[in-house]
Amino acid sequence: MERVGNGIWKLRFGVPETHTPVQLSEARMRHKELDGLSRNSPPINPNDVTFRRTSRGTVLELPLQASENIYGFGLQLKRMNHTGRKKVIRVNSDPVADTGDSHAPVPFYVSTAGYGVFVDTARYVTFYCGTNPQKGTSRDATLAAQKLGTSERELYEKHIDQGNRNMSIDVPSVDGVDVYLFEGPTMKDVVQRYNLFSGGGCLPPMWGLGMWYRIYTKADSGDAKRLANLFREERMPIDVFGLEPGWQSRSYSCSFAWSEERFPDHEEFITTLNAMNYRVNLWEHAFTHPSSEMYWDLLPYSGNFEVWGGLVPDLGMQESRDVFAGYHLDRFVKQGISGFKLDECDNSDYVQSNWSFPDIATFPSGMDGEQMHNLFGLLYQSTLQSAFESVGERTYSQVRSSGPLASSYPFVLYSDLYKHEDFIRGIVNSGFSGLLWTPEVRSADSVEDLIRRIQTTVFSPLALLNCWTFPNPPWMQVDEDKNRNGEFFDDYEEVQKVCRSLFELRMKLIPYLYSSFAEYFFTGTPPFRALVLDYPDDANTYEIDDAYMMGESMLVAPLVAGQTKRMVYLPLGTWRDFWTHEVFEGENWYEVEADLYHIPVFVKDNTLLPLANPVQYVADDAVFDITVQVFGDSPRGFFLYEDDGTTFEYREGKYNKVYISWDIDHGGSVKRVGDYPGARYRIVDWAIGT
Amino acid sequence: MERVGNGIWKLRFGVPETHTPVQLSEARMRHKELDGLSRNSPPINPNDVTFRRTSRGTVLELPLQASENIYGFGLQLKRMNHTGRKKVIRVNSDPVADTGDSHAPVPFYVSTAGYGVFVDTARYVTFYCGTNPQKGTSRDATLAAQKLGTSERELYEKHIDQGNRNMSIDVPSVDGVDVYLFEGPTMKDVVQRYNLFSGGGCLPPMWGLGMWYRIYTKADSGDAKRLANLFREERMPIDVFGLEPGWQSRSYSCSFAWSEERFPDHEEFITTLNAMNYRVNLWEHAFTHPSSEMYWDLLPYSGNFEVWGGLVPDLGMQESRDVFAGYHLDRFVKQGISGFKLDECDNSDYVQSNWSFPDIATFPSGMDGEQMHNLFGLLYQSTLQSAFESVGERTYSQVRSSGPLASSYPFVLYSDLYKHEDFIRGIVNSGFSGLLWTPEVRSADSVEDLIRRIQTTVFSPLALLNCWTFPNPPWMQVDEDKNRNGEFFDDYEEVQKVCRSLFELRMKLIPYLYSSFAEYFFTGTPPFRALVLDYPDDANTYEIDDAYMMGESMLVAPLVAGQTKRMVYLPLGTWRDFWTHEVFEGENWYEVEADLYHIPVFVKDNTLLPLANPVQYVADDAVFDITVQVFGDSPRGFFLYEDDGTTFEYREGKYNKVYISWDIDHGGSVKRVGDYPGARYRIVDWAIGT
Repeated sequence: MERVGNGIWKLRFGVPETHTPVQLSEARMRHKELDGLSRNSPPINPNDVTFRRTSRGTVLELPLQASENIYGFGLQLKRMNHTGRKKVIRVNSDPVADTGDSHAPVPFYVSTAGYGVFVDTARYVTFYCGTNPQKGTSRDATLAAQKLGTSERELYEKHIDQGNRNMSIDVPSVDGVDVYLFEGPTMKDVVQRYNLFSGGGCLPPMWGLGMWYRIYTKADSGDAKRLANLFREERMPIDVFGLEPGWQSRSYSCSFAWSEERFPDHEEFITTLNAMNYRVNLWEHAFTHPSSEMYWDLLPYSGNFEVWGGLVPDLGMQESRDVFAGYHLDRFVKQGISGFKLDECDNSDYVQSNWSFPDIATFPSGMDGEQMHNLFGLLYQSTLQSAFESVGERTYSQVRSSGPLASSYPFVLYSDLYKHEDFIRGIVNSGFSGLLWTPEVRSADSVEDLIRRIQTTVFSPLALLNCWTFPNPPWMQVDEDKNRNGEFFDDYEEVQKVCRSLFELRMKLIPYLYSSFAEYFFTGTPPFRALVLDYPDDANTYEIDDAYMMGESMLVAPLVAGQTKRMVYLPLGTWRDFWTHEVFEGENWYEVEADLYHIPVFVKDNTLLPLANPVQYVADDAVFDITVQVFGDSPRGFFLYEDDGTTFEYREGKYNKVYISWDIDHGGSVKRVGDYPGARYRIVDWAIGT
Repeated sequence: MERVGNGIWKLRFGVPETHTPVQLSEARMRHKELDGLSRNSPPINPNDVTFRRTSRGTVLELPLQASENIYGFGLQLKRMNHTGRKKVIRVNSDPVADTGDSHAPVPFYVSTAGYGVFVDTARYVTFYCGTNPQKGTSRDATLAAQKLGTSERELYEKHIDQGNRNMSIDVPSVDGVDVYLFEGPTMKDVVQRYNLFSGGGCLPPMWGLGMWYRIYTKADSGDAKRLANLFREERMPIDVFGLEPGWQSRSYSCSFAWSEERFPDHEEFITTLNAMNYRVNLWEHAFTHPSSEMYWDLLPYSGNFEVWGGLVPDLGMQESRDVFAGYHLDRFVKQGISGFKLDECDNSDYVQSNWSFPDIATFPSGMDGEQMHNLFGLLYQSTLQSAFESVGERTYSQVRSSGPLASSYPFVLYSDLYKHEDFIRGIVNSGFSGLLWTPEVRSADSVEDLIRRIQTTVFSPLALLNCWTFPNPPWMQVDEDKNRNGEFFDDYEEVQKVCRSLFELRMKLIPYLYSSFAEYFFTGTPPFRALVLDYPDDANTYEIDDAYMMGESMLVAPLVAGQTKRMVYLPLGTWRDFWTHEVFEGENWYEVEADLYHIPVFVKDNTLLPLANPVQYVADDAVFDITVQVFGDSPRGFFLYEDDGTTFEYREGKYNKVYISWDIDHGGSVKRVGDYPGARYRIVDWAIGT
């Protein structure tokens, strides 16, 4: 057992493969920040871990106590608590059931017992989280139990306490594998260590935390500019303006060239939008159309199968990465493009047509299709990130696939799936594994559905309306056909008003969110995370997959269409209603009612919550006027994080911490410390609740 | 390349595994019948097959022409034509999408080009049926195509003709594999050869083709006898009376012992039911509860994990098979039990709880969990079949998992899934791979749904109402709660009347069906099969997954609830409406209307269709009074197959062929040829249609 960092231990079994997440990662472990965490001893005795080779590959078995609950495995949309379940770490675009398949599967889990395990493999590894007792071990319990079920559900659910079991890990095709153990003592410590091992959390540009809007795929530059003007005229805050496949001359696969038909003067288009303080984001996937300028350069450095007639660039090779990053740098980043939406870098098995390359594909780097699938999204992110790094500019982008060790990439996951409950669960679960997720609003069955979905996306890492099938904004009409035909709601201005207030709410939250992301960068603490991560000793939190912590102090409990009330569990401590400051005692379940304009949000008592006056967009030189909401009589101080918002100079210490504090006798005070010469925040008021 | 039988060729690549379907099969190839088929040459040049070892296992690539269409892969419920798709041959109980997962996956496919390929492996082999062109091969076609989609479906479906590709076969974990090639020249010849290679088709006991009814799981012997009396009193034909889990003292897992509470005198119960000419069928699964008498005997011969607290007997070992078969022989077969319903021998990944043993399980035979999963249903069938073989008695049983080389087992597949369209597709697809499938009726949303589902099951290999959650017959009430509360339809006698007429229709069909199964036994021709198998040169049949051939002459096109009409394609030839004898010319699509009492059924012109006067049950000495329906003016003769109906003496030639013929001048004639001394059929009338 090798100590690779404070609280991080490596065990090697057999001879591991060459192409693994750790081997291919460019992340630098954040030793300094790790050293700031507590020092303990290895969380698992290596003698308790068994390893064997099989004809299928290798099997690892680790102890699993009856009391443990297991979380993680990446962006799991179908389940939160994986105890007793089988999970296959396989990238897939449309996980239809609770199999482990995910846009961003991660072979990492964290236990309520306060430790984490990462298996360094790109293979489709299977975790059996205590699914079956060993032969003979549950005989007495089985003899004691009895029930006759009359439904599949009754018969199929485990009906006896299975006691202590094993975590069995099936790593196919390999001769050996490295396993990394992460210490606690708490679950949050474990996740922090995992994220710091991965290079720390990403810090998005400040504008990335504003509102995003992706426009109709068939829109031309005229349509796009009309919409851009409309948002500003009608005071709908939008920071990021996203173009869908129609911006390209050819897609699917991608030409990576502007459509002469729809965007004949794309330079003027970008300039115009940038001048209006929009950031422009471009959709693409990596499959390279024969008409692309990159085609012949990529041909020798691509896989042996085509996807949609395009090449699959071998992003595991520097040659391919250089071609790809260089092209994006010259043609897009230097032209004012702020980021990309990296589509279809996952894989497909469950949709109407199983596209993407086969697992048996071969790549010049020596990777096979299976390894490439599980790492393709990561390699794609790091390739494009390198283009932005080279000009010292931050991006905040979207990606449809990610995986292990991804926390430092400023790419936010999204999905073509669309169940609102799953989208909320995505926020909850992504925080276990160093991932960010946007519950994008893509369509709505009703105004209620639209508003409920916007509320969720506003309380998420990336607040996005993806209107790629709608020529007109969804607040004018949610029915796709009517929207295309220009048949709008009679009362659409009312709907727009609600949407505007939600967009403005997002803009108010930017300083708090930006400071929460700084925590992610400095300490590895996920800005969005499950309640169990903060309250691992409270069994009431073990199954809560419909509410989450946002930053240090806020607990968000979204509603879905059809709900007017829901149960909310508040953990240990005193809490206050975000909207009314009403006091609630923790360690209790509450039935909370909410009208269409609100969802249940709670703030820890004695919190100072900095809320900005909403701006229409986050300009490079934006300064936020802040009203500090004072919750409680003796609030803890709060550090607002501040820097230039767009470059990487914060890595060299160019940032401030703006300390705000308040006491009942002297009121508020503000202290700014740090090396960033500017100021992004003006504290203009202190609002004391009731 | 080795010739293993007429038109069957074996290619060996590398060093195959020990535990493969062929190695473990007890089926004896039917050389004599194979020799009766045509003689040709190998369908594929072995030099056109490439084989390579990879770190994941091995890959085979076979040529696939653009014009070929691919069918098979076992009981595929989600898709019929697999061309351009990826299929994983993995046993699973709840395939939620078109992935290849199946209760009965089979690594065998048949091409419209007139050949078949069987890969002899128990591994989760993946077939890429021409999913992706090789790099660079479709460049020109891709450059020529263009379309901008505005929906996922438009974007994701293949939008260019992909030309000639490969069938790529990914066999994981192995060092080598045997591949069997089956000649045509027609697709039906291919399937016949595959079935004769597997030992030929099964011949069920004659009673197995009657109606089946499985009763409420909590019913006791009193409830059961009341129901048994009711069916006879109310003249509802039922042959097989099935008991669900509640007959056992313990389940899940299984004690294989009668419940003292519900069946205190089970011997009297069986005797009573048998005396009423019911065959009794018992539900079970193989996972052996600690309270079972077999437990300690099976303990050393079982896998290393428990399922539902029970042992997993290693049915790959003779020791375990002997214990299991011996117990079933003594306790059940000799006591008058006619068959079993072998549940949960598949595996689970998509349901609410993933039970069954892990793929990493180990078994004393040397098999691992993956191999055991893909073969468990087969081994379970052959184990129980051996109990019936030992007393010379045929069974017709149910099983939830099957696989390769299964055609000789008289076990019919079923599923907990329930989409009616999928159930119809199951009938169509099972015929490609030597499988039988029952679209059981388990519940219904409405009377219409009940009747539509009964119509489908009546035209299937096993006509089953599985009322395990209903204390009272579904024709009295389809709502489960109301059924339990005794709240019946006001007009339930009307509903019952329709059901009775459908049950009687099934009973009328028994001689025709029995003769069709004899064809299955003697020639390997599936009694239920897709239209494309009979009409491979007609591209209109390539996607027809909602209609099928039943026996030589009938084409069945079921309806689902909500439909009052449907499109039916009639292939080459002249056809007649089964109900009215109306003439339809083939090679045409027809919109056919049907009331609730009928579904579209067509008979080839110039067919003699023997229909029996319906009996209430098929007693061992049953004799059928037959009216021969004469379709057309110059009908072909028909061979009615006849034997004792319950023993294996037919294998020694103890059967008759009853030749019926008709001509317009002399009317009908009957000629009986063979060594069976009895007579099961009396031709009482000839009905000449219009």
